[in-house]
Amino acid sequence: MTMDSHQSQELNLSTADYSLLTDLYQLTMAACYTGEGLEQRWASFELFVRRPPEGFGYLIAMGLAQALEYLEKFRFSSSQIAALQATGIFARASDRFWSLLAEGRFTGDVWAVPEGTAVFANQPLLRVEAPLWQAQLVETYLLNTLNYQTLVATRAARLRNVAGEQATLLEFGTRRAFSPQASLWAARAALAGGLDATSNVLAALQLGQQPSGTMAHALVMALSAVEGSEDQAFSAFHRYFPGAPLLIDTYDTIAAAERLAEKVSSGEMELTGVRLDSGDLITLSKQVRSLLPGVSIFASGDLDEWEIARLKAAGAEIDGYGLGTRLVTGSPVNGVYKLVDIDGIPVMKKSSGKLTYPGRKQIFRSFAGGKVKADRLGLVTESPLNEQALLQVVMKQGERVQPPETLAAIRQRTAASVASLPEQTLRLDSPVSVQVEISAALQALTEETEKRRRVSGLPQATAKNAKDAK
Amino acid sequence: MTMDSHQSQELNLSTADYSLLTDLYQLTMAACYTGEGLEQRWASFELFVRRPPEGFGYLIAMGLAQALEYLEKFRFSSSQIAALQATGIFARASDRFWSLLAEGRFTGDVWAVPEGTAVFANQPLLRVEAPLWQAQLVETYLLNTLNYQTLVATRAARLRNVAGEQATLLEFGTRRAFSPQASLWAARAALAGGLDATSNVLAALQLGQQPSGTMAHALVMALSAVEGSEDQAFSAFHRYFPGAPLLIDTYDTIAAAERLAEKVSSGEMELTGVRLDSGDLITLSKQVRSLLPGVSIFASGDLDEWEIARLKAAGAEIDGYGLGTRLVTGSPVNGVYKLVDIDGIPVMKKSSGKLTYPGRKQIFRSFAGGKVKADRLGLVTESPLNEQALLQVVMKQGERVQPPETLAAIRQRTAASVASLPEQTLRLDSPVSVQVEISAALQALTEETEKRRRVSGLPQATAKNAKDAK
Repeated sequence: MTMDSHQSQELNLSTADYSLLTDLYQLTMAACYTGEGLEQRWASFELFVRRPPEGFGYLIAMGLAQALEYLEKFRFSSSQIAALQATGIFARASDRFWSLLAEGRFTGDVWAVPEGTAVFANQPLLRVEAPLWQAQLVETYLLNTLNYQTLVATRAARLRNVAGEQATLLEFGTRRAFSPQASLWAARAALAGGLDATSNVLAALQLGQQPSGTMAHALVMALSAVEGSEDQAFSAFHRYFPGAPLLIDTYDTIAAAERLAEKVSSGEMELTGVRLDSGDLITLSKQVRSLLPGVSIFASGDLDEWEIARLKAAGAEIDGYGLGTRLVTGSPVNGVYKLVDIDGIPVMKKSSGKLTYPGRKQIFRSFAGGKVKADRLGLVTESPLNEQALLQVVMKQGERVQPPETLAAIRQRTAASVASLPEQTLRLDSPVSVQVEISAALQALTEETEKRRRVSGLPQATAKNAKDAK
Repeated sequence: MTMDSHQSQELNLSTADYSLLTDLYQLTMAACYTGEGLEQRWASFELFVRRPPEGFGYLIAMGLAQALEYLEKFRFSSSQIAALQATGIFARASDRFWSLLAEGRFTGDVWAVPEGTAVFANQPLLRVEAPLWQAQLVETYLLNTLNYQTLVATRAARLRNVAGEQATLLEFGTRRAFSPQASLWAARAALAGGLDATSNVLAALQLGQQPSGTMAHALVMALSAVEGSEDQAFSAFHRYFPGAPLLIDTYDTIAAAERLAEKVSSGEMELTGVRLDSGDLITLSKQVRSLLPGVSIFASGDLDEWEIARLKAAGAEIDGYGLGTRLVTGSPVNGVYKLVDIDGIPVMKKSSGKLTYPGRKQIFRSFAGGKVKADRLGLVTESPLNEQALLQVVMKQGERVQPPETLAAIRQRTAASVASLPEQTLRLDSPVSVQVEISAALQALTEETEKRRRVSGLPQATAKNAKDAK
């Protein structure tokens, strides 16, 4: 970020800018904490989803890799600090605030569920334990990162579950994603959530994957116009990409399939696949299958998990799906990031209908016959009872405790995680989430925190009593 | 993009990477065009929306600034070319293809409607006229850019229209935006579409604007816990931000307002505003208004234009709105980018239900009494008949014809554009789009193109005949 960019209105993002990519109030609050001498108080914030998107029985946690990368790089340059000072908003902020920003790094601990893990409402995906000013400042970016990738990974997992292991699922969403970077993150989360490949060349190369794709109507139209016919367009494309899938719905899908069938059966053409992007996919795919047995049929065009389920139920002959708009856009995952403990004092917010459980928590998951039996949300100080504790320490004093995972490892965890869910949680129609039991200790702490606040009317009293009770 | 990033799985975006941020098929098609010797054919592609999102009577075109920036910087580095070659996908591509990429720049012309202009279904927001290989490769990025910013700008314009000129509208969507870059683009489009300010510090600074915001529940909770009470939290914040708006719904909204009212009326506290983030905003805002007359009341929490209309109709006492989730996420604008002419040969695609008008087009808009009277979609070669021609040349041979516009200028155009629309187009319930008439010349060209293709069965014949007919 340079002041020059004010003129050109370019909105460019480099990792050096990440720390200013936050809501203003995070900075004003940090200035207030610092003025009050509270900036080093040890704060725990948990990131969780109160209510998953409509119709989602589970969420697949994703985005931790980018969250940790951000925390590792978290710092303010002198030009960023100068730009903040020039706003005049911080006229009364202390010198200490500016020196904190200038010298500051993220020095806290992070607990998180591994990427690819299925989680449910009110379960923390991540907890930051850090000096208050740091834990506060990082909220916006952490939410941004986890909210979006969790959405896309969950959709990808749902698509895979509906389409089945054999189907080829391709991520084609780049043109509809909400900014270029969104397309990169969507591609990553989609692959980690269960899709096979992305058409996004930059994303594929950065992730060490092979990009995927077929052809567009433009090629058929351009080559038809110039070279003489749709068939000549197909032949031309095969000169450079032998056997590559062809898009056959530019003019007349069935006529194109009939002509291709002749060439394939006469041995004149090798053909691995065709793509249908419009029309009645059920009828067309069946007709194309009978004309071109042994040729993969790909479908695209505003598809989602419900449409795939409908196509499969109707016996459509489709081997692969291109997923775009409905995978990478739509209603978000609305994660929130809430203070749960400060200096060992558990805290909670309770405004109308928005309960937050106090204290540093752990998710305890129990299994029976390879399936999730029950989840228990408890305090981090409780011991597992034949349960798996899902939140793990992933960063200590600002340092990762282990190298980033491979995409393959995360994808495998997603698959295992989905496979462990009961049928009623996986189904598309009115899914039933896994029951999350609140542990006795967490229940007691919640009631205590609430009761003491009600009696005293003062949050401090709540907090002090809670501390004394320890 | 370096090969190292394969290991770390970092998905970083720098402007140097933009050219690879495309769908694979754009590159395979470019390789095919080049192999066939067609890469320099002069192609015209138009970007338009077949059907705006449900319930939208108009769209506000946005994102052109980022589109032109991309076209100016369009090039492939040797490491990018090496990475493409290493995929093996392009094994049969010609040497000419690789040298094109190595030497290539965007050398075409671009026509576009200015940012902030209201447009309707099937009207081109932009036309690229360039050598075929270039016009094809830039499709993905151009769609990404215009689709998202047009969505956010349109929503912002709708919000402004419903809320009225006096309301303060703040963009708070960063934590829910689909990636950090999406938050920057959303902030820009929201301000250009009619909002007053953004909480996104980086976006505001890059756009030369003052960032905006209040405080979060975390501050109230943390300071309540440590300093003793919610009131002490408020006082502490005011020590550094005198009079700043306070968030009053952490514990009990009305109790907080009553205590603040005492302090304000006794002159102990200056207070410019309060924010309500939960509860029944109608009842609460009226109660708070009677307790704190003269203090601005801000509301937030999953608000959108429908909710603002409902609040206003119910007489809620709200002066400003924080807009987040429903402004920056949701169903996309589904722009498409279609070949309409190649070497002077008009072309069209007509697969099931997806008609594309052939030829290079212009939007002719007529006004009566300051209001849009009618739109006529015609050919670029037609003359306006007391009409405004909306598409303008914005880039010639790869160079911008004028410097980027200021945000203020674009915002003003949006306001004027919305003000020129009829009431039935602006309304939220079942809006009626402005009628877009197809000019006689365009109608004739469409029929001719279609008829000749039907008769001959060969797209080439269509194209040749169309050319002969000129």
